[in-house]
Amino acid sequence: MTPSDLKHRPPLALTMGDPAGIGLEISLAAWTQRNDRYIAPFALFADADALIARASHLALSIPVHIISDIAEANQIFPVALPVVHTPLRANAVPGDPDTANAGAILASIEHAVAAVAQKTASAVVTNPIAKSILYAAGFKHPGHTEYLASLSELHQPGAQRTPVMMLACDELRVVPVTIHIPLNEVSTALTAEKIVSTSRIVARDLQTSFAISNPRIWLTGLNPHAGENATLGDEETTIIEPAIAQLQKLGIDVSGPFPADTMFHEHARQSYDAAIAMYHDQALIPIKTIAFDRGVNTTLGLPFVRTSPDHGTAFDIAGKGIASAESLIAALNLAHQMATTRARTAIS
Amino acid sequence: MTPSDLKHRPPLALTMGDPAGIGLEISLAAWTQRNDRYIAPFALFADADALIARASHLALSIPVHIISDIAEANQIFPVALPVVHTPLRANAVPGDPDTANAGAILASIEHAVAAVAQKTASAVVTNPIAKSILYAAGFKHPGHTEYLASLSELHQPGAQRTPVMMLACDELRVVPVTIHIPLNEVSTALTAEKIVSTSRIVARDLQTSFAISNPRIWLTGLNPHAGENATLGDEETTIIEPAIAQLQKLGIDVSGPFPADTMFHEHARQSYDAAIAMYHDQALIPIKTIAFDRGVNTTLGLPFVRTSPDHGTAFDIAGKGIASAESLIAALNLAHQMATTRARTAIS
Repeated sequence: MTPSDLKHRPPLALTMGDPAGIGLEISLAAWTQRNDRYIAPFALFADADALIARASHLALSIPVHIISDIAEANQIFPVALPVVHTPLRANAVPGDPDTANAGAILASIEHAVAAVAQKTASAVVTNPIAKSILYAAGFKHPGHTEYLASLSELHQPGAQRTPVMMLACDELRVVPVTIHIPLNEVSTALTAEKIVSTSRIVARDLQTSFAISNPRIWLTGLNPHAGENATLGDEETTIIEPAIAQLQKLGIDVSGPFPADTMFHEHARQSYDAAIAMYHDQALIPIKTIAFDRGVNTTLGLPFVRTSPDHGTAFDIAGKGIASAESLIAALNLAHQMATTRARTAIS
Repeated sequence: MTPSDLKHRPPLALTMGDPAGIGLEISLAAWTQRNDRYIAPFALFADADALIARASHLALSIPVHIISDIAEANQIFPVALPVVHTPLRANAVPGDPDTANAGAILASIEHAVAAVAQKTASAVVTNPIAKSILYAAGFKHPGHTEYLASLSELHQPGAQRTPVMMLACDELRVVPVTIHIPLNEVSTALTAEKIVSTSRIVARDLQTSFAISNPRIWLTGLNPHAGENATLGDEETTIIEPAIAQLQKLGIDVSGPFPADTMFHEHARQSYDAAIAMYHDQALIPIKTIAFDRGVNTTLGLPFVRTSPDHGTAFDIAGKGIASAESLIAALNLAHQMATTRARTAIS
């Protein structure tokens, strides 16, 4: 990679997601806005007929262009939506997901990861999937992210692949250490090792993908008032403080644990580049309160850049033309920015 | 009480709080702003000498007027800060709390509650105290709120006194069902009974103190995604949903449980008059993210109106003249508004 290559980055690989959800229509909506504001060029890995049908269903006149080589996407993008055709087995009915399409949903993800592994795509952006539909068709992974991690192993054996979920908007980057577990299991699941490994990945990716040379990281406490000197719970002293001490020994600029409720207002946010929270709602409440439809989910710790809109398939509103493409657009643009920064960091 | 009495409401009774904290200086600061914007008239239950010393320490020239009868406060307020003298035993040194003053700190609260019980004050507004200082002097209550509840029992025996903490700002009212307990005890502490009793008090006080005739209340789930059909925890189905069913049978407009992370953005907030959260950070994170220094803590369920600024004694910045009086001012004005609404509701 030479500096001049940065000007001609490969397109983003955008997956189809569940075609019964809002993925197809927000992808169409994102493309239509390319003249009004910057939208990073992408190739959509989807069934071209389903896409045309959805556009027609929504009375949108959008040129769809099937490409056989993703390299064509950048050139096509200004005039038509570039599609890497990924055929469905069943009709895509808005709001009515069909397990018959599970194979195509997964193929779309696999081909997108293959493209980024072959460096013909600069990053992967994923539309929302419904795990229950995939499980019914034999899918074995706990979720989208773990599936991507396993695919990256196939393409780049031995590559570091501990996925870490970060939510990002202009005002805030936040990472939960524990994620999709019941609240009453958080205390048991939280370990100093997990905090240390998560924070190290965050610190490294803030450098490589966000061009922050000395990232400042703040950690929340687990308990109200960060335990108030261990009178309201002791995980701060037994787990979080030892993790912070280890991270500081590694030269990482980590502070905390701070009471979570006072960490996310405008003034406090100026003090750090990323906040690390101990569990799902502690991380998701502040970012969704601030930026409900602008938040982007990005997976750190993979060998490639991956982002996704921070919402689900929204089967309830699919096909109605009312879904907001804001989070997808933010996901596309953040992926482009992160991939460009990674490429630049790799040069320097 | 007749409608004309509403125009001549008694003053608010403002307690001293810990005199080594920021209470004295934010009370001075609030009074100095009475000509710039509306500040509900108050009488400060404090040591007049300590107050004059703090003003002098901060190079503020503020007339302090000792009143023997709180009824004088409204007339004095435009020209001097009305003080119900409550003598300290030791000097009030900013940042250096002294257990010798515990008695005076408690006397200030007791006299303020007595005034509101005798209806010579319209509401109690409390400056922050440090429980550890009071405990060292033999104080036995778990906190400020429980102490106020016990005092209300002395003054109005048999009066309903289940205190419920609500945090309020212009954009949001939120109530945690469990409060100052370790996170890993929340699931055990949460019961349908607690949710029902809390929600009933909230519904009633929204009517009597906030003039909302048919309050809409939304409840959070406890777990990520509100348990996602009991795959991420089952307290939603075993505790929260039964509580909601009971409340609906009582004719209260309650909805939920909803994923907590999607309940606090601007659009969602339009759907309810108060949000009830299951634990401390779930309630406090959104309101402090939105309105860090404008949040007010109000105790519902007492026989009188009580508010307080939503911050602590801030010993670390006491005496420096940098403490913000915004939350205290919001607390004074909300107390005035709630007390006036209660009086009006009692008439109609």
